[in-house]
Amino acid sequence: MKKNAIIAQSGGPTCVINSSLRGVIEAAREFDHVGTVYGACHGIEGVLKEELLDLSAQPEEEISLLRYTPVAGSVGTCRYKLKSQQAEDFERVIDVFKAHNIGYFLYNGGNDSMDTAHKIAQLAARRGLDLTAVGVPKTIDNDVGDGEFKLIDHTPGYGSTAKYWLHSVQYANEENKGSCPADPVLVLQAMGRKIGFIPAAARLADPKRELPLLIYLAESPRSLDELAEQVNETVKQAGRCIVVISEGFQVGDVGAVKDSFGHTSFGASRMTVAQTVINFLNQKSIAAKGSARCNVPGTDQRHSMGYASAVDLDEAYRLGQKAMELAATDQGGFMSTILREPSFIYSVSYDKVPLELVANSERTFPAAWITDSGCDVTDDFIKYAKPLAGEDMLSLPMIGGRQRMTQFQPIYAPKKLAVYVPEADRK
Amino acid sequence: MKKNAIIAQSGGPTCVINSSLRGVIEAAREFDHVGTVYGACHGIEGVLKEELLDLSAQPEEEISLLRYTPVAGSVGTCRYKLKSQQAEDFERVIDVFKAHNIGYFLYNGGNDSMDTAHKIAQLAARRGLDLTAVGVPKTIDNDVGDGEFKLIDHTPGYGSTAKYWLHSVQYANEENKGSCPADPVLVLQAMGRKIGFIPAAARLADPKRELPLLIYLAESPRSLDELAEQVNETVKQAGRCIVVISEGFQVGDVGAVKDSFGHTSFGASRMTVAQTVINFLNQKSIAAKGSARCNVPGTDQRHSMGYASAVDLDEAYRLGQKAMELAATDQGGFMSTILREPSFIYSVSYDKVPLELVANSERTFPAAWITDSGCDVTDDFIKYAKPLAGEDMLSLPMIGGRQRMTQFQPIYAPKKLAVYVPEADRK
Repeated sequence: MKKNAIIAQSGGPTCVINSSLRGVIEAAREFDHVGTVYGACHGIEGVLKEELLDLSAQPEEEISLLRYTPVAGSVGTCRYKLKSQQAEDFERVIDVFKAHNIGYFLYNGGNDSMDTAHKIAQLAARRGLDLTAVGVPKTIDNDVGDGEFKLIDHTPGYGSTAKYWLHSVQYANEENKGSCPADPVLVLQAMGRKIGFIPAAARLADPKRELPLLIYLAESPRSLDELAEQVNETVKQAGRCIVVISEGFQVGDVGAVKDSFGHTSFGASRMTVAQTVINFLNQKSIAAKGSARCNVPGTDQRHSMGYASAVDLDEAYRLGQKAMELAATDQGGFMSTILREPSFIYSVSYDKVPLELVANSERTFPAAWITDSGCDVTDDFIKYAKPLAGEDMLSLPMIGGRQRMTQFQPIYAPKKLAVYVPEADRK
Repeated sequence: MKKNAIIAQSGGPTCVINSSLRGVIEAAREFDHVGTVYGACHGIEGVLKEELLDLSAQPEEEISLLRYTPVAGSVGTCRYKLKSQQAEDFERVIDVFKAHNIGYFLYNGGNDSMDTAHKIAQLAARRGLDLTAVGVPKTIDNDVGDGEFKLIDHTPGYGSTAKYWLHSVQYANEENKGSCPADPVLVLQAMGRKIGFIPAAARLADPKRELPLLIYLAESPRSLDELAEQVNETVKQAGRCIVVISEGFQVGDVGAVKDSFGHTSFGASRMTVAQTVINFLNQKSIAAKGSARCNVPGTDQRHSMGYASAVDLDEAYRLGQKAMELAATDQGGFMSTILREPSFIYSVSYDKVPLELVANSERTFPAAWITDSGCDVTDDFIKYAKPLAGEDMLSLPMIGGRQRMTQFQPIYAPKKLAVYVPEADRK
């Protein structure tokens, strides 16, 4: 019997999240028993509110354009967390699935989302619903899976953010080189909270270590005084210094807030680490007659489509396809994953890992990839990350001087249930 | 008799400053009486220190690659100001010109630089030196010339920064649309100090005004309470809001510093306007259950080559050519300029304006281009700015996964004078 599918997205968007979406939509066509594919508007909130975009009814051109449409504006993501104690929410999800004849649930996100997908699958089984729940990995932080890269080699989104940083540091170097008499120190703040894969990617701009580049990961803490001393030493030697620092590097309280997952959200903090660092440097007159300045890119590092990696886009697409294949072939309880062959020749395969394993895993940045100085990463990291950023610049479709991106038509599944207010939204 | 040329760059770099440099170098070849073209390392400081890069001896490939090399890392810029009272500095410039048989001096920069070029030309005449001094316009702020666009229609660099903002807001909108349940307000801070051309360019992302986009120029001041009310209203109506705000928008003291020109430098300020705004919004809980977050792009908006405008690059190149033509045909005391035909068909011509007129002019953002609401710009602005951003994405030369940029060989003019310490650098 034909069953329909729902895909929901969770957490921070990426350049490639829509490629996974496209992979799911297009792979569904390979299976006659998969009916309509719905996109849950703003993730699990869309399921709770029964807001289901009909993706199967969208024009082919808009589906294709998902490749060039960054973040998740077309369907939307959320940071709404289905907590275990929110039993009503879970029951509502099951009700919506039943009402719309859903047999396949695909959840795109990080560790937490894999946990949610797993719980939904378990509950569905208890309620006698024939549901196959599958995860699709995603996060620019590359913090899904284990530290040994056995569950997943890297997450879709990371390669594009790495490429963003490769270019950013190349350009920042030209800027710093050109204007160092006035502005000898340029501090760039990178996302990634407590895990250093994003700031580490700055090294891809300078694999031979020819630039006066210092990289500070949250994993390699030091005092502002120590940091200032290293910057000072670099300015003395090279006349200038580029600092890439993690948003989660400890410099005291920056007034960061927590999102609903309990994760620290630095984008809304009262202060930034980069600002704290340049204030300290300027106060200490490290930059001699000039001044230290900072850039705090924010969300652009995950949605700057011009610097997206074609490798990353391709892989995200295939992980979406693989997830749909798992769902359609009754392999519920798994996340689609990408594994790398142990060779200097970059080669990947698409496989599955149990959601439960992913949900309970924690990836850390390998300590062996941080140099003794504490402010650089090793060649092994470069070997790991370089293929993910790809080789070329994307060619983006432009119309009338603006980028043409997916514009879905507002075709929704007809609502069949009573209005529902998600538990966390109730006063 | 053959005379040599010096080109010096001043102030903040741009995506297209090196295209003007290339225009100067290549145009010099058209004139037999123009000898070697030297680039002053780090602007006028390089002249004072007799650090003159031989641009005529550089490989052709590196000259061509200037088109794709953002900012001025290859030759360098500076914020060193030749002040009238620094008589020794001025005399030193003349000495260096004499020692290296300089007959042509080209100064690339904004209003202040045109003033400096003018003063150098006057002094050279008094000292009996046959020197032709010419200006090359440049600034992403578009603040050179007059408010009626009669001296110059727009400055090279602005079109590329406008295109950066066009893309940034398109992507920010996808981000905001996709993640608005958690992060309904996204505040983006734009450069431009007191003149609103850069934040105004955000409107190019949404010429039909379909997005919940508010644009705050420094020219249109209001209290944080008023701003919060407008944001609040927008969130109520659209569920979300994108704010683009000038770094110079008045929100109280942000601890900005002054550069040597006396201009406020917001890149090194102790706080940013965007941070101040989101702190205020978060404190007032404007974003309801979610939070307001901000991006503070900084220098990337002037060196993000992937979003540079081909129109801007072409024009910058031709303004460099024109400046060299003016210098080589004894038309000193002028700046090369670009003027637009008064028609809806975009068409420009290259001409000259007296340095003195430019130096004493002040451009303002036309008041008529700000809407009554104070947080938007009019269609007339769109008509003005749209052609400058061009139509396409650039294709950047990549090698080994990194962008290939100009790498000049260290071929310098032999030093002929005693070591000199610029006046402002003396203790």
